[in-house]
Amino acid sequence: MLYFLNDYSEGAHPLVMEKLCETNLTPVPGYGDDPYCASAKEKIRSALGLPKADVAFLVGGTQANLVVISVLLQRWEAVIAVESGHIAVHEAGAIEFTGHKVIAMPSHDGKLDAGELDAYMKRFEADETHDHMCFPAMVYISYPTELGTLYSKAELTAIAETCRTHGLKLYIDGARLGYGLMSDACDLTFREVADLCDVFYIGGTKVGALCGEAVVFPKGDMPLRFFTMMKQQGAVLAKGRLAGIQFDVLFTDGLYFTISRHAIQMAQELRRTFTENGFPLYVDSPTNQQFFILTPAQKEALAKEAAFEVWDPIDEDHIACRFVASWATQPETIRALEKVLKTL
Amino acid sequence: MLYFLNDYSEGAHPLVMEKLCETNLTPVPGYGDDPYCASAKEKIRSALGLPKADVAFLVGGTQANLVVISVLLQRWEAVIAVESGHIAVHEAGAIEFTGHKVIAMPSHDGKLDAGELDAYMKRFEADETHDHMCFPAMVYISYPTELGTLYSKAELTAIAETCRTHGLKLYIDGARLGYGLMSDACDLTFREVADLCDVFYIGGTKVGALCGEAVVFPKGDMPLRFFTMMKQQGAVLAKGRLAGIQFDVLFTDGLYFTISRHAIQMAQELRRTFTENGFPLYVDSPTNQQFFILTPAQKEALAKEAAFEVWDPIDEDHIACRFVASWATQPETIRALEKVLKTL
Amino acid sequence: MLYFLNDYSEGAHPLVMEKLCETNLTPVPGYGDDPYCASAKEKIRSALGLPKADVAFLVGGTQANLVVISVLLQRWEAVIAVESGHIAVHEAGAIEFTGHKVIAMPSHDGKLDAGELDAYMKRFEADETHDHMCFPAMVYISYPTELGTLYSKAELTAIAETCRTHGLKLYIDGARLGYGLMSDACDLTFREVADLCDVFYIGGTKVGALCGEAVVFPKGDMPLRFFTMMKQQGAVLAKGRLAGIQFDVLFTDGLYFTISRHAIQMAQELRRTFTENGFPLYVDSPTNQQFFILTPAQKEALAKEAAFEVWDPIDEDHIACRFVASWATQPETIRALEKVLKTL
Amino acid sequence: MLYFLNDYSEGAHPLVMEKLCETNLTPVPGYGDDPYCASAKEKIRSALGLPKADVAFLVGGTQANLVVISVLLQRWEAVIAVESGHIAVHEAGAIEFTGHKVIAMPSHDGKLDAGELDAYMKRFEADETHDHMCFPAMVYISYPTELGTLYSKAELTAIAETCRTHGLKLYIDGARLGYGLMSDACDLTFREVADLCDVFYIGGTKVGALCGEAVVFPKGDMPLRFFTMMKQQGAVLAKGRLAGIQFDVLFTDGLYFTISRHAIQMAQELRRTFTENGFPLYVDSPTNQQFFILTPAQKEALAKEAAFEVWDPIDEDHIACRFVASWATQPETIRALEKVLKTL
Repeated sequence: MLYFLNDYSEGAHPLVMEKLCETNLTPVPGYGDDPYCASAKEKIRSALGLPKADVAFLVGGTQANLVVISVLLQRWEAVIAVESGHIAVHEAGAIEFTGHKVIAMPSHDGKLDAGELDAYMKRFEADETHDHMCFPAMVYISYPTELGTLYSKAELTAIAETCRTHGLKLYIDGARLGYGLMSDACDLTFREVADLCDVFYIGGTKVGALCGEAVVFPKGDMPLRFFTMMKQQGAVLAKGRLAGIQFDVLFTDGLYFTISRHAIQMAQELRRTFTENGFPLYVDSPTNQQFFILTPAQKEALAKEAAFEVWDPIDEDHIACRFVASWATQPETIRALEKVLKTL
Repeated sequence: MLYFLNDYSEGAHPLVMEKLCETNLTPVPGYGDDPYCASAKEKIRSALGLPKADVAFLVGGTQANLVVISVLLQRWEAVIAVESGHIAVHEAGAIEFTGHKVIAMPSHDGKLDAGELDAYMKRFEADETHDHMCFPAMVYISYPTELGTLYSKAELTAIAETCRTHGLKLYIDGARLGYGLMSDACDLTFREVADLCDVFYIGGTKVGALCGEAVVFPKGDMPLRFFTMMKQQGAVLAKGRLAGIQFDVLFTDGLYFTISRHAIQMAQELRRTFTENGFPLYVDSPTNQQFFILTPAQKEALAKEAAFEVWDPIDEDHIACRFVASWATQPETIRALEKVLKTL
Repeated sequence: MLYFLNDYSEGAHPLVMEKLCETNLTPVPGYGDDPYCASAKEKIRSALGLPKADVAFLVGGTQANLVVISVLLQRWEAVIAVESGHIAVHEAGAIEFTGHKVIAMPSHDGKLDAGELDAYMKRFEADETHDHMCFPAMVYISYPTELGTLYSKAELTAIAETCRTHGLKLYIDGARLGYGLMSDACDLTFREVADLCDVFYIGGTKVGALCGEAVVFPKGDMPLRFFTMMKQQGAVLAKGRLAGIQFDVLFTDGLYFTISRHAIQMAQELRRTFTENGFPLYVDSPTNQQFFILTPAQKEALAKEAAFEVWDPIDEDHIACRFVASWATQPETIRALEKVLKTL
Repeated sequence: MLYFLNDYSEGAHPLVMEKLCETNLTPVPGYGDDPYCASAKEKIRSALGLPKADVAFLVGGTQANLVVISVLLQRWEAVIAVESGHIAVHEAGAIEFTGHKVIAMPSHDGKLDAGELDAYMKRFEADETHDHMCFPAMVYISYPTELGTLYSKAELTAIAETCRTHGLKLYIDGARLGYGLMSDACDLTFREVADLCDVFYIGGTKVGALCGEAVVFPKGDMPLRFFTMMKQQGAVLAKGRLAGIQFDVLFTDGLYFTISRHAIQMAQELRRTFTENGFPLYVDSPTNQQFFILTPAQKEALAKEAAFEVWDPIDEDHIACRFVASWATQPETIRALEKVLKTL
């Protein structure tokens, strides 16, 4: 089976596995209070050039989202996301389960529009009944988005400024952050992403780790009792070393970015392969997720040889399918896929 | 540093690491829908002799507790635990955060007394105002307990029967289950533990895994939408394989039990070492956690050479300290500890 | 000041006050276990012709909504409402605070469209990732809606059937139920409303009571422990008599409907007054809430003489304002308003 | 039936009813933004001599408790109460339902001991694992307690000081506050109660109102968005006037205290009647709740003539029963009870 199902199909990058094995029997304190976590945090701060940033390691993306959002919101506050946002759709109501409303705004190829955000907030502020409403207090965006698209520096800056104007915190879900930053379409640096938001996370699960996401508070203002609140939500690893060692390796010699770049090259190869063989794009994604339109017959036939996801059953004759490249994708796999495509 | 701090200081058992490396680049579907998880579940069912048991993998102990308890309780229901129980003290109010009261009952060396439970329930049932109260609906116990003690078969049976009489579900936290079952003091089989309760979990984190706990519904009655509720609480691993591979190894050729037995032998060695050198027991624990009473001066001196936990500062002259053996404890470390003890 | 601000500006209908005074010193048991509540429930059942219906009295509309919805939904379930629905906007996130998502659907003059609901549910059911999503399990509608509009019998039947097809419970918020049923545009009976839904409430606060809403389970399937869950949410009156006496009066000799009809006549008078004086309708509402479009200058001038609510600041030259009639509205007040209108 | 069942058996004090009727048809804005509420708040501030105090009206005691506690606690924080405290037992887990642990401490005739509180907090603060625990942040006490007992000024001052030492907020549940302040045993003034705590509520439901409790923040530090959070929990009356008018009357010419004093006199009469007729006290209560010990036969016989509550079925031969006096209790009723007692 040619695997393009997602970016969490394999284990971890071999260098990560190597270090996990190498350190395996060295005993350290639990709950993240160990030298591996300390080193990993230091390397992340250093890669950002933000020596005072706070970093915390969580296990997965939904967990990172629900902990960060529920910690940062006061109980009368809501978070704004596009209607296709991960927290709005695919987290089984995790945010609501912590007591907070997700306010859905229109999605433009997965992206929030700063102008619409501004208009929404002005309407809310002018509404004389707003004491009876949830107060929007945070904007959640993904970089890259669910559809693999990217905010330009201008777009992200506009959103950040709109947030500042209206007293909204800006939180960036970076489950695939590396795949965004290493895209040819990216005009933002790692540091700029950090500077534009209040909190973000660096996705490990989809970018080379077995599990783990690094939540970063760039301004060093991680809320008091963050650890206790993580514990309260079952988000603390007894063997905190597991996250620490992995991020330590990923942020040694820029591995996180190198392997992300590889995925982008593989994605470009995927795109070339599909488009050269006559398959239209569903979305114009410059990152590791690629979306193509197949006919039901093509989809059927291809599914026998390759693993991919049906994204959107557009109409009777067209199905949007997602093909994902990752740090683990090999050129040979794409070449094999091309052979199959030619037969469809 | 001689390490007896806890049973989650090292990584995973070498055979676990080996298999993680070996399978590392084989792509599989996410979220636990992979052959490793399927195989691990099958091996657990087989070890229990319960082909219809349902198994789900979670990441850590607090997470397993908060998911299982919040899923099984109706919103007007409460869980009963001893006042020293993990959910009652050391989970940062995780159960209450999901909306449920933890009713604390007296602890007898960490254990709940079936007679006291019965009396409590009779009082509740007879109370004419009980529609204004939380309804006790589940009993939570740990096997072994927080203090390393074990319920005998008679004691556990009495609790199970009391639960049945009063319509209470029985949930066993098996964070250290292997260390209980392999104790010389244990008169219960793995299967008997399963038969006596409604749900339990097999601890991986403390018994050879990097992370992971296997929640087992012995009767095959895992609630509908359990996966969705796990997701809702951030308790699903995208790379479900991580848990699956580990439990698959731990339940191959009885590894889980073999390494647990090793820890028990090391614990007995620890106990012999301390008692022969004149240190009194704080609790008589037949499992991998051992508790000894030191003077402040002894504690101070020992802390320079060994890592252990201060458990209870009894009075000015006595400190109860915990020394933990695990699958990773080596006889040499205990011999080195003995040398230090003789100098105190 | 000519009062058209809302339908909760005055106290209770004089007959309600009279009975409250008359019974004031008669002692009865607390928490609703009194003869007044029993009698009121019986009269409601009788008015419905549903002798097995369950009835519970709550204090206010938001409270009724949050209790009913949180009680009826399983924790992985969500409720569907139109985006202008009370629970979606003006309850300060009360539903989310109980852990549940409100899924917002398009509003057509305040109404949900059965076809759109059906399409939404089909998409959800066909979505292969729906285990990662909240499960829609209930539809919430208001009768009349926030905009004073009414579902026809055909429309409500279509929604009810769509609910049945997709396993959704149907809950009707009847905060202004009387004002709906007594409208000339209403082609539904009280009983038919009850038959078409799974649960609804009869609004007292806006229709003649000081406070109080009667939640009705027409099929007699009020969930187990409903009282305990009400208590858990602070929704039980120690002096349950307060609700019981009021509903007993309101359902004696059809008072609830008589006074609702009066409000409708006053609303028609309001409508005639505005339209005859050249003010356009904002919405065509057949119930007690009327919406007219004023210029900013007109609004400014009118606000000196009359109390009403700015509903929607349409554009620089037009403001939609709400004028509400109730059981307490007097013809003289409308005549006085007309005089003012003529001067604008 | 001679009624001593509780202090919420009748409606409201006649002067309250009179004013409700008198003002009944005067329209005012909703949600408590009316002159009656304003006046009532002013009178409460004036009675306290605290012109900057913040006051909010809620509907009932459980509601006041769950709103105040959930608003004031951070999500990682817990509230301390005695094990017999209302929030610990008889509110159906309302506090836990909002996500917070109630830490139960020993009850001494319903009272918390300042020394035990201090010791508990010192242990907590010294515990090296307390980042894994709920942080105690508030002390909840009732004045009078569930058993009708009262804290002396010295006792309450000691608790307040212990709270200050350990950074705990002090919250006083004054469901029966008037009955405490008017007791002969009370050595505290209304103002002193306010000065010693951070927030308290003045019970209306049990002291002359149909419903309603006045939450007071003596220092004027009611949290931001308190109204929105009340709304979020269904605790806002659309007709806020209902609470405002009642408290306005109760705090006019000291009515709240006059009627409370009457209840105390009736309670003393009850006590004299029972003790003179040979019935032992169960608790020595100086307030409006009186507890006597009856034999099962006496209880049985008395229950035919009088309404009272079985409090504690002590043993086969003794039953503690509660008899409650209130603002509504008449001397004749006690004289009639005495006649029955003499026949037992």
